[in-house]
Amino acid sequence: MKQHEITFLPGGVKITVDRGDNLLAAAAAAGVYIPASCGGDGVCGKCRVRIEEGEARMTKAAALKSDDPAVRLACQTEVTDDLVVRLPEGADTGRRRPKTTRAVSARSLSDLVGEWKVSPPVEKRFIKLDPPSMEDNTPDLQRLLRAIRKGCHDCEEPTYDHPRLLQELPFILREADWEVTVILLRGKRAEEPDRIIAVEPGDTSDRLYGLAVDIGTTTVCGLLVDLNSGKVLAEASSYNDQIKFGEDVISRIIYSQRPGGLDDLQKAVVRTINSVIETVCRKVIISPSDISYIMAAGNTVMSHLLLAIDPKFVREAPYVPACSQFPLTRAAGLGVYAHPSVRLFLYPSIASYVGGDIVSGVHACRMHKSEKLTLFIDIGTNGEIVVGNQDWMACAACSAGPAFEGGGIKFGMRANSGAIENFHIHPETLEPMLVTIDRAKPRGICGSGLIAIVSELLETGVIDQQGKFNRKIENPRIREGEDGYEYVLAWGKGSMTGEDIVITEVDLDNLIRAKGAMFAGYMTLLESVGLSFSDLERVILAGNFGAYIDLERAISIGLLPDIDRDRFYYLGNASLTGCQISLIDNDRFRERTEVSRLITNMELSENPDFMNHYMAALFLPHTDMSLFPTVAAKLAEQDG
Amino acid sequence: MKQHEITFLPGGVKITVDRGDNLLAAAAAAGVYIPASCGGDGVCGKCRVRIEEGEARMTKAAALKSDDPAVRLACQTEVTDDLVVRLPEGADTGRRRPKTTRAVSARSLSDLVGEWKVSPPVEKRFIKLDPPSMEDNTPDLQRLLRAIRKGCHDCEEPTYDHPRLLQELPFILREADWEVTVILLRGKRAEEPDRIIAVEPGDTSDRLYGLAVDIGTTTVCGLLVDLNSGKVLAEASSYNDQIKFGEDVISRIIYSQRPGGLDDLQKAVVRTINSVIETVCRKVIISPSDISYIMAAGNTVMSHLLLAIDPKFVREAPYVPACSQFPLTRAAGLGVYAHPSVRLFLYPSIASYVGGDIVSGVHACRMHKSEKLTLFIDIGTNGEIVVGNQDWMACAACSAGPAFEGGGIKFGMRANSGAIENFHIHPETLEPMLVTIDRAKPRGICGSGLIAIVSELLETGVIDQQGKFNRKIENPRIREGEDGYEYVLAWGKGSMTGEDIVITEVDLDNLIRAKGAMFAGYMTLLESVGLSFSDLERVILAGNFGAYIDLERAISIGLLPDIDRDRFYYLGNASLTGCQISLIDNDRFRERTEVSRLITNMELSENPDFMNHYMAALFLPHTDMSLFPTVAAKLAEQDG
Repeated sequence: MKQHEITFLPGGVKITVDRGDNLLAAAAAAGVYIPASCGGDGVCGKCRVRIEEGEARMTKAAALKSDDPAVRLACQTEVTDDLVVRLPEGADTGRRRPKTTRAVSARSLSDLVGEWKVSPPVEKRFIKLDPPSMEDNTPDLQRLLRAIRKGCHDCEEPTYDHPRLLQELPFILREADWEVTVILLRGKRAEEPDRIIAVEPGDTSDRLYGLAVDIGTTTVCGLLVDLNSGKVLAEASSYNDQIKFGEDVISRIIYSQRPGGLDDLQKAVVRTINSVIETVCRKVIISPSDISYIMAAGNTVMSHLLLAIDPKFVREAPYVPACSQFPLTRAAGLGVYAHPSVRLFLYPSIASYVGGDIVSGVHACRMHKSEKLTLFIDIGTNGEIVVGNQDWMACAACSAGPAFEGGGIKFGMRANSGAIENFHIHPETLEPMLVTIDRAKPRGICGSGLIAIVSELLETGVIDQQGKFNRKIENPRIREGEDGYEYVLAWGKGSMTGEDIVITEVDLDNLIRAKGAMFAGYMTLLESVGLSFSDLERVILAGNFGAYIDLERAISIGLLPDIDRDRFYYLGNASLTGCQISLIDNDRFRERTEVSRLITNMELSENPDFMNHYMAALFLPHTDMSLFPTVAAKLAEQDG
Repeated sequence: MKQHEITFLPGGVKITVDRGDNLLAAAAAAGVYIPASCGGDGVCGKCRVRIEEGEARMTKAAALKSDDPAVRLACQTEVTDDLVVRLPEGADTGRRRPKTTRAVSARSLSDLVGEWKVSPPVEKRFIKLDPPSMEDNTPDLQRLLRAIRKGCHDCEEPTYDHPRLLQELPFILREADWEVTVILLRGKRAEEPDRIIAVEPGDTSDRLYGLAVDIGTTTVCGLLVDLNSGKVLAEASSYNDQIKFGEDVISRIIYSQRPGGLDDLQKAVVRTINSVIETVCRKVIISPSDISYIMAAGNTVMSHLLLAIDPKFVREAPYVPACSQFPLTRAAGLGVYAHPSVRLFLYPSIASYVGGDIVSGVHACRMHKSEKLTLFIDIGTNGEIVVGNQDWMACAACSAGPAFEGGGIKFGMRANSGAIENFHIHPETLEPMLVTIDRAKPRGICGSGLIAIVSELLETGVIDQQGKFNRKIENPRIREGEDGYEYVLAWGKGSMTGEDIVITEVDLDNLIRAKGAMFAGYMTLLESVGLSFSDLERVILAGNFGAYIDLERAISIGLLPDIDRDRFYYLGNASLTGCQISLIDNDRFRERTEVSRLITNMELSENPDFMNHYMAALFLPHTDMSLFPTVAAKLAEQDG
């Protein structure tokens, strides 16, 4: 992708951005403060900049109230050229931090996930059979098996599906004049024979598709893959239709205990998967019945619910799932739009709260093949963490609470349009710079916005390390509201809802508990094997959230460990990536069993070490500042 | 069983019979002619004998018209003592043949079928699991698998059924307080892992049952077996409910091509199997759901129909079945009354007209383990024959036609009450001695009766070797009827239906074609491997018919080869016996694949050698009398 250089005046801060990036968001990401209270909607008119060199296109005609033709609203400007940009009054480029630090992104994906070849777990083979005669009236099935083995000395006879295949076979063979395509399912293990799951008339071997699907509690994401080329043809995602029965896995388990509840939940997730299938198939104009394999991953509860296995005991101590390995299932039997022959594989889980999505993610990034000591983190309602390498792995789930997904935060919301995703505060005026998703009027705060807000409030001394507002500051934006002290991010007149958007001390407390649980999890797992943060060679952030986390800020509030920034990687939807790789490369797929074999689960919920670490982590960033040397230095510099 | 000696006067012929045998039937079997025209019903009063020594009980009070207290009706006399019996006027003990020769019977069964041990393909194992705790919250399924493998170092992890088992498991384990019985299905091959098909609360390991079932075109026979002891607990049989859609496999195939026909036939045979299951279960007061395995065999068409596989192409040249190996199927999925976990195994077939019943029969008598060159014969509508030994086997089906099952014979009938099953003719008066099944009034002729009638008519010169009546004989029983010449077996006044029961020249022609096809089959198979009858070390007669065949007579009409009588064995329902053995001994069960591997099918229907042999065999016993030396000698003696 083409990139452009932007120079901000005064100060001369330079940043490089992708062509097409939004100028306001790019400035925020670079740590350049430009006043902006409407989130980027173009209405507050505060982010006026002057383009001194280069061409800059306005995306929306806005009332600029300026006669200078070079003036633009930064939030309405798409970068298509190298630019020299003069900032307005009240802007601030003298930031302590030159720019947002992101984990190493998808550009390095192949370093992380390795190579894979196109050798999927299903194969199509075009076969010409000798028609039967009185001299050779071998039965149809045996004739087909013989033809499949022809020219293959060592291979075992395939098994086959029944009864449908046997019922159809005689007619398909004759209608197709003895030229057919068989769909072969590879054996689960290398030594197992292939299995004929379908026979199609004629040569259809050029049409072989698979679906990778990540079944999230909130969102179901799917990739349609051409299994002949390994290419992703389409992707789609959809909110999990189970949401109406409860936001998180616990409320889903509770709902599942109502009469008919399990069935409601099972049908809901299948409906969602079907809508993802329909969307991807519509995009490339194939039929859902052309999909020959579905590779899926979900957390333990999602996996139970998909297979209509009651998750009751997942929620009751000692938290025992019905199973950790899920059987290879006929997708159509679950209600999924698929040919009756199609198998759905569901990644095995490790424990009640460390599910197949984590196994798939760890599998994707090949921790089980690397010497490097790696910490794998998936931040969500239940933060799941895995630490280890090719020799051993330990995992745990921390009940972090839903703060990073918007839960327990007064104006918390998911990462949708209008969510504040980036934030700066003017060190003197304490006026905000808001950047929202889709540059809409602000409506709430998503996870990355929350981290930005808390770290900015902390760094400017608006709050202290316990998350309490500095009562001495007099500023209209800091006030006592109905939930105690709060900071007004957006006034009602500029917000999407007409309400003031605030962050409260209660919110801060919830955030501190959430990040504290995560951090205590890392500590407990590492200590249990006698290691510390300095031993970590890689930290892999999974989940979409990882892509938006500003490392520096996440470290400054104590959500991530304070180690070299270049040891961080993010993998996006690692679970979906694992499914994608397994769908394309059967050898990689078979390696998954190593992951399951290596990982040991550690229960944190009643673990006293965990409780101690948790109590110590209820501070910004931590009560033990020696764990956060760079943050300590920064805070000291600021105080000084 | 206790036996008694009977001496017939005059003449002093001695025979040994089982206690409880009927005196008339015993005399007939011994070749002693006693006039009897009512079949044994006690009404013609011709079979009056005088008991000169011993006690003889009359089973029915009949009008004897005799003042002599020692006079009895032979047909109403049960043998319970050693007897000296004086025959009535018109009896004849000067028979050419001293007694009926039967194939070696079930008494030698173990010589033939070998030993088997109690080691069935399903096993129940009582397991006590450690309840889960926070220290060990292994998922339920993995906990169960671990417990199963405990104390077993080398054994592979079992696989398991899904989804039902997984759905039920958490509740069963907890309700049963972690003490359960697992039902394990052994792997198809020794190297395959076991499979958990069901889990039951508590210890149910003493209740393990299996069903062996022979699915005949006419009759479905079942044995309920205690798989812990290997003992047969009950047996039952029922006419195949498909009969209403057609008597033989060809008419069933034709019916299957009608709309809904396949479904009708599938449901009908399942209904029949269910009625057999209900009967055997009622006898020992268990529930059909207590049966853990069903081992079945049927001919190729029956097997297709049970699995709802269209048999259309079985009937069309080149006679190609959909498959020869049938998949292990869930019985309940077919509609069979069984627990959803229960598997139904169906013996593989060899070709369109050599089915799993033959494979099961050959498997039962271990031809594949014997050095002895063996001819295995199942006489029915399609006579199936197998020849070979442990090194090779060849099989063929001959379209013998349904004569031996009563088809194409004017008064032909199945072996039911009133069917003439034995027959003698007085050499001078040509009056018949009829013995019917159940000693009822004669209603028709079953297979064994037909053989007896034809051989007797031939030996007394009533018919010639072409099956034509001797036009020179003047006797009221020989007359020209609407179908040409015929012999009156029973007059209408004494028959069950009021009609004269006759055997016609058309019947004789059909019988000759049927036995000619069988014989041509043996000849063709043997010649194809360069062997002749003298090489045969064993002839095994399968099917119930085999038990009732009088070897001497069957040889004299050319149905069986003229070799040493002591080389003949009969195995009753060999197919059912094969199922029974496989159900009890999994090692024997696994040997079945050797049978399938060894047997090569030979198509006779368009084979010129077969046609030549067939033409040559349309004679009683054969045009080439050198093939029948003992028959030739007997006929010569009679003529001389």
